[in-house]
Amino acid sequence: MGSKLEKLLIGKSLKTEELKSEKLNVFWGLPILSSDAISSVAYAGEEILWVLIPVIGIMSYKYMFYATLCIVLLMFLVTMSYRQTIDAYPGGGGSYIVAKDNLGTTPGLVAGASLTIGYILTVAVSACAGTAAVTSAIPSLFPYKVQITLLLILFMTIGNLRGLRESSKMFGVPTYLFIISILVMIAWGICKVKIFGYTPVAAYKVPQVTGDITLFLFLRAFSSGCTALTGIEAVSNGIPNFKEPCQKNAKKVLGLLSFTVFIVFLGLSYLATLYHSVPNSNVTVVAQIAAQVFGNNVMFYIIQATTAIILIMASNTAFAGLPMLLAYIAKDGFAPRQFAKRGKRLGYSNGIITLGIISCLLVVLFNGETHYLMPLYAVGVFISFTLSQFGMLVRWVKIRKQGWVHRAFINGVGASVTLFTAVLLGITKFTSGAWIVFILIPTIVYFMAIIKKHYTKVAEQLRLSIDEKPKEINFAEQKRYVIVPIDTLNKSFLKALNYARTISKNIIVFHVSVDDEATNKLLKKWHEYDVDIPIIVKKSPYRSIVGPLVKFIESEEYSAGSKDTVTVVLPQFVVTKWWGNILHNQTALFIKTMLLRRRNIAIVTVPYIIFED
Amino acid sequence: MGSKLEKLLIGKSLKTEELKSEKLNVFWGLPILSSDAISSVAYAGEEILWVLIPVIGIMSYKYMFYATLCIVLLMFLVTMSYRQTIDAYPGGGGSYIVAKDNLGTTPGLVAGASLTIGYILTVAVSACAGTAAVTSAIPSLFPYKVQITLLLILFMTIGNLRGLRESSKMFGVPTYLFIISILVMIAWGICKVKIFGYTPVAAYKVPQVTGDITLFLFLRAFSSGCTALTGIEAVSNGIPNFKEPCQKNAKKVLGLLSFTVFIVFLGLSYLATLYHSVPNSNVTVVAQIAAQVFGNNVMFYIIQATTAIILIMASNTAFAGLPMLLAYIAKDGFAPRQFAKRGKRLGYSNGIITLGIISCLLVVLFNGETHYLMPLYAVGVFISFTLSQFGMLVRWVKIRKQGWVHRAFINGVGASVTLFTAVLLGITKFTSGAWIVFILIPTIVYFMAIIKKHYTKVAEQLRLSIDEKPKEINFAEQKRYVIVPIDTLNKSFLKALNYARTISKNIIVFHVSVDDEATNKLLKKWHEYDVDIPIIVKKSPYRSIVGPLVKFIESEEYSAGSKDTVTVVLPQFVVTKWWGNILHNQTALFIKTMLLRRRNIAIVTVPYIIFED
Repeated sequence: MGSKLEKLLIGKSLKTEELKSEKLNVFWGLPILSSDAISSVAYAGEEILWVLIPVIGIMSYKYMFYATLCIVLLMFLVTMSYRQTIDAYPGGGGSYIVAKDNLGTTPGLVAGASLTIGYILTVAVSACAGTAAVTSAIPSLFPYKVQITLLLILFMTIGNLRGLRESSKMFGVPTYLFIISILVMIAWGICKVKIFGYTPVAAYKVPQVTGDITLFLFLRAFSSGCTALTGIEAVSNGIPNFKEPCQKNAKKVLGLLSFTVFIVFLGLSYLATLYHSVPNSNVTVVAQIAAQVFGNNVMFYIIQATTAIILIMASNTAFAGLPMLLAYIAKDGFAPRQFAKRGKRLGYSNGIITLGIISCLLVVLFNGETHYLMPLYAVGVFISFTLSQFGMLVRWVKIRKQGWVHRAFINGVGASVTLFTAVLLGITKFTSGAWIVFILIPTIVYFMAIIKKHYTKVAEQLRLSIDEKPKEINFAEQKRYVIVPIDTLNKSFLKALNYARTISKNIIVFHVSVDDEATNKLLKKWHEYDVDIPIIVKKSPYRSIVGPLVKFIESEEYSAGSKDTVTVVLPQFVVTKWWGNILHNQTALFIKTMLLRRRNIAIVTVPYIIFED
Repeated sequence: MGSKLEKLLIGKSLKTEELKSEKLNVFWGLPILSSDAISSVAYAGEEILWVLIPVIGIMSYKYMFYATLCIVLLMFLVTMSYRQTIDAYPGGGGSYIVAKDNLGTTPGLVAGASLTIGYILTVAVSACAGTAAVTSAIPSLFPYKVQITLLLILFMTIGNLRGLRESSKMFGVPTYLFIISILVMIAWGICKVKIFGYTPVAAYKVPQVTGDITLFLFLRAFSSGCTALTGIEAVSNGIPNFKEPCQKNAKKVLGLLSFTVFIVFLGLSYLATLYHSVPNSNVTVVAQIAAQVFGNNVMFYIIQATTAIILIMASNTAFAGLPMLLAYIAKDGFAPRQFAKRGKRLGYSNGIITLGIISCLLVVLFNGETHYLMPLYAVGVFISFTLSQFGMLVRWVKIRKQGWVHRAFINGVGASVTLFTAVLLGITKFTSGAWIVFILIPTIVYFMAIIKKHYTKVAEQLRLSIDEKPKEINFAEQKRYVIVPIDTLNKSFLKALNYARTISKNIIVFHVSVDDEATNKLLKKWHEYDVDIPIIVKKSPYRSIVGPLVKFIESEEYSAGSKDTVTVVLPQFVVTKWWGNILHNQTALFIKTMLLRRRNIAIVTVPYIIFED
């Protein structure tokens, strides 16, 4: 039943060979890897205005445009840096791999942890913001916002479990719709004022000037707008997702992404300046501009709808990026191995499911209002940017290949400005959430180290030298201690006993008595059954089955101190219907789990299948 | 770690022999089995007034007293009936056993299902009502009512897991405090008016008369008050919980219980008449009376506090009753077998935990406001009363022992009046929740039948006739097909291989290839290792391990159609730290589960223990 449902939702299994055909071309790669970066533009300008307007009033538009220019410049530098990363790392991996490769393990893990935090927050925050956009349009849905957000996350989790290509089409169209409608708005908005001579009437009063522009104020505005850059990392992280030639395609997508963000961000900033938008908690800046440019007609609703959809879709960037990042980290042994395993549809299912569950938990925990987690993830993202670019800088200096000075210069500039921005974000956003990042990152890195230590220890203990050959065994002289536990004399037990007799002549039937009456009944039946195999009965006052069995196996009475492996043959009946299992005590499974912790016990499970129609 | 916490909360394991010392005497048996019945008196009178007052105003007090008398009479009849049940059924079991024994399986299951519903609702409703009493006293706690209710249920679940005796002391004292303070209030309330000539001033205006008393109105009032009888069943259900002589002790407790309800219920009704209480949604009738009798002093708060506590404790009746009922049903094969298993402290832990979880879910689902589930459980309880007493009636008629006419008469009257009440409740409460019972009971009975069918089928297929002896085995000529799957050539594999060599000379090492590179590496290593055992490699395009293995086992290539059991020896490394398990793929466990569904495969698990410090 479970597997039928799975097939319906996820689709049929795909062969490993089909991996190639699941890859992205440039056209579908752009929306799937960029919705996060592009959607953040929808609120980055607004964030800048929130900082400036209360202080410098009408002057804000001028400095907003300067801040936007700085951010676009920063993005240009970051893009240049990442192009070099794509060239140098065709296998992909982004900050984690670059930092680990060039700066060492700990910086790599710090980058990995920052990115992980960023991705998880992206899903929670974007899904909530998307839902908020929907419920702002349809207020009657407001009481169900948590349920709606959870449904959206579930929908995206399933979409991503189905596989990359399908998910890119599912999520790509709205991204293009958003880009096109915003571009139309920008073009028409500029024409309306500059060509048709329309004089914009501000919807809200611009507040009075209460202070002067200071460097710190400008820097705060700048760092608030830096959220526009989150999500750029996804492209260089996802190189192996692209069709061949994947490096070239990735660079194309990165270029197109930057260009789109450049146009949209600058365009929206310019429109905000033209139309004197004033941010407030009821109507977004984008909505204000749309209302002024188009009036209250269908285009207004298209802008609102695509904004809502792209905010929801933004979380898809994380669904594409995090599972792949976790797979890299897992392959290095710093995360549970399961993250590196491909699922039925070739996606890293465990990463996708984990991301879905954690973000759902965050949504429930914060009751669907995760707005104040927003500044938090910019910090994580810029820490990983910085580490990645310092890594590239160190790389060029080490390798000293032709043109290294030029390359080192580009990454050096990138590293410096992103470090500067990260520090700026850390300082200006410390009290509004950034402090959490400074606790979470060390914690995650600590657990990663613990996991690595565990895997290393396991590997060491399992390592086999080529000289350790299998034991020489005198087959005929094997003692073969075999115990068959009995609870009821039935066909399942008989099957186990028959099996035991094929491997040994030295068999003991063992009964743990928790109920005198039942034991007497069994013994009576056993004697009537009259088989020439000794039965041993031990009482268990605390009703444990495993305790007396282990005690007996280790006793002098039994193997007389022999170090030979004792074989316990467990009868286990298997019910064919899935719900049948909840109706049985699973004693065999429990005994097995407990016995496995002992050396020199081998456990044979002999299934007896119960047929049900 | 888990087991240390368990020991702290639940206490150390108890021996099966200690079962006797965990039993109840009359003094502690009364509170533990009666808090439900006694606490319901706190609101039964109020429920009657709610029906009468809006219609017949001041006349209500007269008819309320008549209704109370009818209910007390009904309780007297039910008690008489149950005394006979206790005599006839020393093993306990209440309605379920009586109905099943005398009326047949289906009526028995209907009684069992009704009781189960009643018990679960008791916990949810009483815990919520108790919390409501607390939050009415301390309004600042109101926003946390769900959390408080859940904590209360958790507290009671743990108390009951610790064991019967301890839980009876823990929960018995407040019951006695409630009884004593209510008795003090009744005595003082009567004296104040009758001896000291106090003229009560009604706290609320008695509404105008708007209609006349009709039979239907009176019957509705009567059926609303019948909630006072819920919980009486618990005593006859719990006979084996009593110290020897358990029947005599149970009858004593039943008598004391009825007497207490009789005094408290009549007394409170009389006080309500004297003081002209008017029910409203802010102040309970008991609180109104207490305020008038004592004034706003410490006794008022004692009454309020003990009322709150006994409402919370009422759910403990269900914790004592339901697990035992489920154990009976499970022993008959109509409920999962796990319910019949005693836990570490000798209580039926699974029943206790299930009850705790389901009632917590109800509390969360209804957001801590389960008031409207209240009428629901009276219906269930009266259905079970009716079935139990019809069962007793049929029993006496069948047996025709000395005095059977007298006994049959008592149970016949009991059966008639409870049937009448059940029908009355079904009609008057149908729209306010009783309809749910008429859907739930058939559903539960259906699932019970399914479960029984499953167990019967399993038992049939496992049944062994005494002539089916173990196979004669020519030990030396055994083929012993053994397969050792390999993923990595390591010590764990070597241990499995060594074991395989002790039981067979006919060994094949089997590798499922999901990754060409890894397979080539393994094969290279295997050839270097140079052991004279054949290795077989099969490709698995869909990355399944079990598929190719099963296909190979069933192929002509391998066993050439032989029906002999194939043994698969699985290397499994065992990590000693509990969290270590989440870091490994558990492939061995998965393979085992999948393989077990095949006939003629025996699975040997050879553990290799990884030590961690």
